[in-house]
Amino acid sequence: MSTINVPQTMKAAVMHGTREIRIEELPVPQIAPDEVLIKVMAVGICGSDLHYYTHGRIGKYVVEKPIILGHECAGEISAVGANVRQFQVGDRVAVEPGVTCGTCEACKEGRYNLCPDVQFLATPPVDGAFVQYIKMRADFVFPIPDSLSYEEAALVEPFSVGIHAAARTNLQPGSTIAIMGMGPVGLMAVAAAKAYGASRIIVTDLEPVRLQAAKQLGASHVINVREQNPDEVIHSITGGRGVDVAWETAGNPKALQSALASLRRGGKLAVVGLPAQDEIPLNVPFIADNEVDIYGIFRYANTYPKGIRFLASGIVDASKLVTDKYPLEQTQEAMERALNHKSECLKVIVYPNGAPEQSAADAETERQPAGR
Amino acid sequence: MSTINVPQTMKAAVMHGTREIRIEELPVPQIAPDEVLIKVMAVGICGSDLHYYTHGRIGKYVVEKPIILGHECAGEISAVGANVRQFQVGDRVAVEPGVTCGTCEACKEGRYNLCPDVQFLATPPVDGAFVQYIKMRADFVFPIPDSLSYEEAALVEPFSVGIHAAARTNLQPGSTIAIMGMGPVGLMAVAAAKAYGASRIIVTDLEPVRLQAAKQLGASHVINVREQNPDEVIHSITGGRGVDVAWETAGNPKALQSALASLRRGGKLAVVGLPAQDEIPLNVPFIADNEVDIYGIFRYANTYPKGIRFLASGIVDASKLVTDKYPLEQTQEAMERALNHKSECLKVIVYPNGAPEQSAADAETERQPAGR
Amino acid sequence: MSTINVPQTMKAAVMHGTREIRIEELPVPQIAPDEVLIKVMAVGICGSDLHYYTHGRIGKYVVEKPIILGHECAGEISAVGANVRQFQVGDRVAVEPGVTCGTCEACKEGRYNLCPDVQFLATPPVDGAFVQYIKMRADFVFPIPDSLSYEEAALVEPFSVGIHAAARTNLQPGSTIAIMGMGPVGLMAVAAAKAYGASRIIVTDLEPVRLQAAKQLGASHVINVREQNPDEVIHSITGGRGVDVAWETAGNPKALQSALASLRRGGKLAVVGLPAQDEIPLNVPFIADNEVDIYGIFRYANTYPKGIRFLASGIVDASKLVTDKYPLEQTQEAMERALNHKSECLKVIVYPNGAPEQSAADAETERQPAGR
Amino acid sequence: MSTINVPQTMKAAVMHGTREIRIEELPVPQIAPDEVLIKVMAVGICGSDLHYYTHGRIGKYVVEKPIILGHECAGEISAVGANVRQFQVGDRVAVEPGVTCGTCEACKEGRYNLCPDVQFLATPPVDGAFVQYIKMRADFVFPIPDSLSYEEAALVEPFSVGIHAAARTNLQPGSTIAIMGMGPVGLMAVAAAKAYGASRIIVTDLEPVRLQAAKQLGASHVINVREQNPDEVIHSITGGRGVDVAWETAGNPKALQSALASLRRGGKLAVVGLPAQDEIPLNVPFIADNEVDIYGIFRYANTYPKGIRFLASGIVDASKLVTDKYPLEQTQEAMERALNHKSECLKVIVYPNGAPEQSAADAETERQPAGR
Repeated sequence: MSTINVPQTMKAAVMHGTREIRIEELPVPQIAPDEVLIKVMAVGICGSDLHYYTHGRIGKYVVEKPIILGHECAGEISAVGANVRQFQVGDRVAVEPGVTCGTCEACKEGRYNLCPDVQFLATPPVDGAFVQYIKMRADFVFPIPDSLSYEEAALVEPFSVGIHAAARTNLQPGSTIAIMGMGPVGLMAVAAAKAYGASRIIVTDLEPVRLQAAKQLGASHVINVREQNPDEVIHSITGGRGVDVAWETAGNPKALQSALASLRRGGKLAVVGLPAQDEIPLNVPFIADNEVDIYGIFRYANTYPKGIRFLASGIVDASKLVTDKYPLEQTQEAMERALNHKSECLKVIVYPNGAPEQSAADAETERQPAGR
Repeated sequence: MSTINVPQTMKAAVMHGTREIRIEELPVPQIAPDEVLIKVMAVGICGSDLHYYTHGRIGKYVVEKPIILGHECAGEISAVGANVRQFQVGDRVAVEPGVTCGTCEACKEGRYNLCPDVQFLATPPVDGAFVQYIKMRADFVFPIPDSLSYEEAALVEPFSVGIHAAARTNLQPGSTIAIMGMGPVGLMAVAAAKAYGASRIIVTDLEPVRLQAAKQLGASHVINVREQNPDEVIHSITGGRGVDVAWETAGNPKALQSALASLRRGGKLAVVGLPAQDEIPLNVPFIADNEVDIYGIFRYANTYPKGIRFLASGIVDASKLVTDKYPLEQTQEAMERALNHKSECLKVIVYPNGAPEQSAADAETERQPAGR
Repeated sequence: MSTINVPQTMKAAVMHGTREIRIEELPVPQIAPDEVLIKVMAVGICGSDLHYYTHGRIGKYVVEKPIILGHECAGEISAVGANVRQFQVGDRVAVEPGVTCGTCEACKEGRYNLCPDVQFLATPPVDGAFVQYIKMRADFVFPIPDSLSYEEAALVEPFSVGIHAAARTNLQPGSTIAIMGMGPVGLMAVAAAKAYGASRIIVTDLEPVRLQAAKQLGASHVINVREQNPDEVIHSITGGRGVDVAWETAGNPKALQSALASLRRGGKLAVVGLPAQDEIPLNVPFIADNEVDIYGIFRYANTYPKGIRFLASGIVDASKLVTDKYPLEQTQEAMERALNHKSECLKVIVYPNGAPEQSAADAETERQPAGR
Repeated sequence: MSTINVPQTMKAAVMHGTREIRIEELPVPQIAPDEVLIKVMAVGICGSDLHYYTHGRIGKYVVEKPIILGHECAGEISAVGANVRQFQVGDRVAVEPGVTCGTCEACKEGRYNLCPDVQFLATPPVDGAFVQYIKMRADFVFPIPDSLSYEEAALVEPFSVGIHAAARTNLQPGSTIAIMGMGPVGLMAVAAAKAYGASRIIVTDLEPVRLQAAKQLGASHVINVREQNPDEVIHSITGGRGVDVAWETAGNPKALQSALASLRRGGKLAVVGLPAQDEIPLNVPFIADNEVDIYGIFRYANTYPKGIRFLASGIVDASKLVTDKYPLEQTQEAMERALNHKSECLKVIVYPNGAPEQSAADAETERQPAGR
């Protein structure tokens, strides 16, 4: 095992109850022969982190003991397990946060996101990445080029959802797509649609800041659903034909109904967002008469190399999503910020080992809102 | 143009209003150079025929003038258009009832069932097959072997729906399927699942006669939803795993919900049946979490040669579906029978040119219940 | 039928024997109700035109009477058949040159390029587009935006081959592709690979001018096979892994062998070019051991709307391919130029109704080499 | 770890050089926590075993030290690793012989047969199954029902190749297939084609006994290539149309050329057999003009549960392939028999722990030719 300068203990942001995160000193994890130790450099805050933070559960996943949140992360290799050949200490990497068994039917068939035994960062009882060091099985760690920042590398996680939706809905270059909901997943879905060559990308949201960001990432038409009826606007944009593909990313029942209604005959719908309620009324005769395909989307599989390549190629500039930056010590403030300022925040990043371009000491004493 | 013994006029069963069918004498149609004239030998009564008969409309399709119903038909070639090379007078044929434009995007891409300009038999304002002769564009007419009866050939139409569902849901040999609703479409869907090699075929209905017929056609497990909870029974049959594929053929909201709930992770659902109401509540988190695929089914495309081959091969004996036989003159009685005796009737056949094995005169004077 | 200013007769460049083209005055064609008349504005010279011009045949297709060559064309609608709704006189259009039956199994399944009854421009005995007016079935005519020149619209034909190869080999964004042979088809295949988001496009040829053009169209690596061993260079570029996809466009046996050898395990090969000889030795154990897929490519289907959209979007500037311009009267000179100056010419365009930006009179008296 | 009656040592048939197998006493293997120990009950002799036995190598795989051959095997669980939950001692199982890494790109994408780090039984330097006990990672071991004999379970291995070819070539029910070469892989490929519902299965070989066996397994037409020209016969059987799918399983250049020539336009070819020479001349214009797909086949992935289900369902009776039975002590005789009596032998089975229905002592003293 090769290592470098790894301390015995580290800081971690541990959630002890809803809206209660404490900074604690924990032992740095020991790695197994097929694992690497990663010095965590950037962690994005995801909607699921906020949900655990405020409700202590998501569906059947319940926080029953203190947990470390955070699963969108990137960092630097600090130690390499004995059986790991593809990494060296110092390598810059993105982390795919779900470790699968590799032996079940789903894994064997290439749909490892459906592995029933997956260990997913920050999904109870598995700890996450708001911490200075994490260990990870090496096959879920991916090298990133120097041109990619750690923030962008962390964004490969939500980007992966969009890439997976593109693959599932067989998004073709030159096609027209509607994407409902411009939260971080929706925004990165715009980036994915652009990477797949969609020629018209129509998006909806109700926050102007998000619609503006969508434009920067490649949306050709933005619809503020507070002001416009998306069904009518999409009908008009497509000359009455409907879109080839639609993705619902917000978990909003009305948005899902609009996404379905927006489709052309033979169109394809991806259900990305999870609604709060189970039963959503859907227009079933429309599905049958128009031979619509609907695809459920659960996380992603085999997306990381592609996602890194897309971001490194400069097709999209994902760094535009980062609106707020916090040191690890202010993880709770970061969570509150993301929770309470949805009309301003897009992606909030936590830096467990100090923000880039400044000393860790600085990072501990001042908040770093981006772009102001 | 080659013809044989074709009279100038013919009998037709014309619907003049709801539940009012009159036998009239009409001119035999003139064929175009790319058409054939078919002496209609057997016509199955379909649920859509019954719906027009009782309600005068299905959704946007409204009967506004007298119409001839019937679209599941087979017969004998009586005349051949000048440009038709593949048929001769006397050929026995099955008729695919929807004539498409061949030039729109849907037709060019092989999904001609989505052609916006389709002319479909017995869909207003297009007349159907309860008549002694129909004309048809030759590319929608398919030769049948002598081993196939005209009744079976007429059943290729509902069979096609199942074949199309099998293709859309990529039904694999050895897989487990649940089929909800054992009307004629559901029963022929069982036959399709069997032809595609499904090893376990679980079906639901509430009529014992239909469940019994399903067994004869290849169902391995039958569930009477009056007596058993299909969700529990399917859970038990599959050892808690769920089925690979489910098809809802009844247009019943609860059956659709059960079909969805019956799926394994990564399972595929076909929406075949058209519910009376538009909005059906569906479990959307289930769709997303389990990466379910849902496929709308609208009629079929490219199924006839395959359907004829399957029936001719003897994989399934579709003739078991035929419970009632009527001459053309008793079309109204045939419709009433199909409408009012759902616990006894499976498929009612009308014979516009006399029932097989008997003279047309006999057919006019006595009803011919099958198998008694 | 709506028409405008259509003369009774027109000029046509008729091939009477190998290397013998005469300008003749012929009647302007009469259109059927489902056809349009097109004033031909630009026609590209294709390798198959040159082959008929020099050999009088390609395989089983033999020129047995005078024929008009040319099939890559675009123009303006001059008359509209009675049943045609989508066009008006004056519309600018690209022409898909193969008219299919719409009724055979291949057409019905969406693979109409395999229609046995296709009528393809400039394939004996069907006349082509080196003529002032052609008629065409309206469903093979596609509107082009004003931003697209007629030359570019004519190039949608060779572009279509690349788009079809991309679809057949399921070319994914971010992938690595090798394209062998940088004739016009190969060059437009580079454009297609770029439109499909390939991130590394490695090309081979032996003419520097073509490799230079490939770079302009989006090739990331060019290999002059006179100077470098393509197998070694591709091995080196891909770090020993091989490319995801390879297309052979030249019909060269060695290039085909290199294309196969360039693939990674699980890679996909498209056979686009037609070799002069039938039997080419291929490494069969390599195909089996690496589970290579090989796809034959014959023309294209369902590519025109996409191709027009790609070119109009500005992803690639196909106009860079046009090196030489001739009026119809100099069709023979244009053919000779294309035949004898392969190290200089990329695409030679013939203008049957005068070159753009100048009078037809001018066009008749002077040759118009592009870009000089 | 749970175990039962496992001895310390066991008999093994070790190959020390070409055509030199010695029975030795070796330690029974120790299992890891994710492995099971299997008492080997039946092992089929495969062509690759014979090739190593006679040549000491296959391509780049060279026998450099004594090796145990045999990889088509089934048996009974004798010990279960600490982490294995799905098996108990006494379970009857089939063994998938290639253990893959589960972490490389090929494994993650579901094409684990392309894993570069696979450990495959009886492929140097990995020992195989001509031995009384083998250990195996539990995820490559599959339960079999009591209705399936160990011989049939061993045959799931060659059956898997056919199932994989069926999946790769998307073999559809009702289709017409040509299968070239009726060795055990070809014969089990017939069984696979039948399981996938092919309605016409045309096979070729030059040994009457194999053609006869093919008929028993489901072939509809057999062609002895010593007596008939397969191209002509297939042309005649298909009415000049060609087959939908063809598989070459013999590694014979002429058979591969015939398989290609047998295809209809748009047909699909699987290259299953490995020819002795690398370069085989193939008709490339035929591939392009007819848009043929060619798929290399390397072993299989995700086939075992399906294969077991097909055999257990009784679709095919694979036991008909077993012509010869030997105890482990006569492994060399078994190999010589398989090598030298190709006109009589189909599948030779070795029983490391005594033949069924008889004592091991009996099995040691007499050869057991089947079916005489």
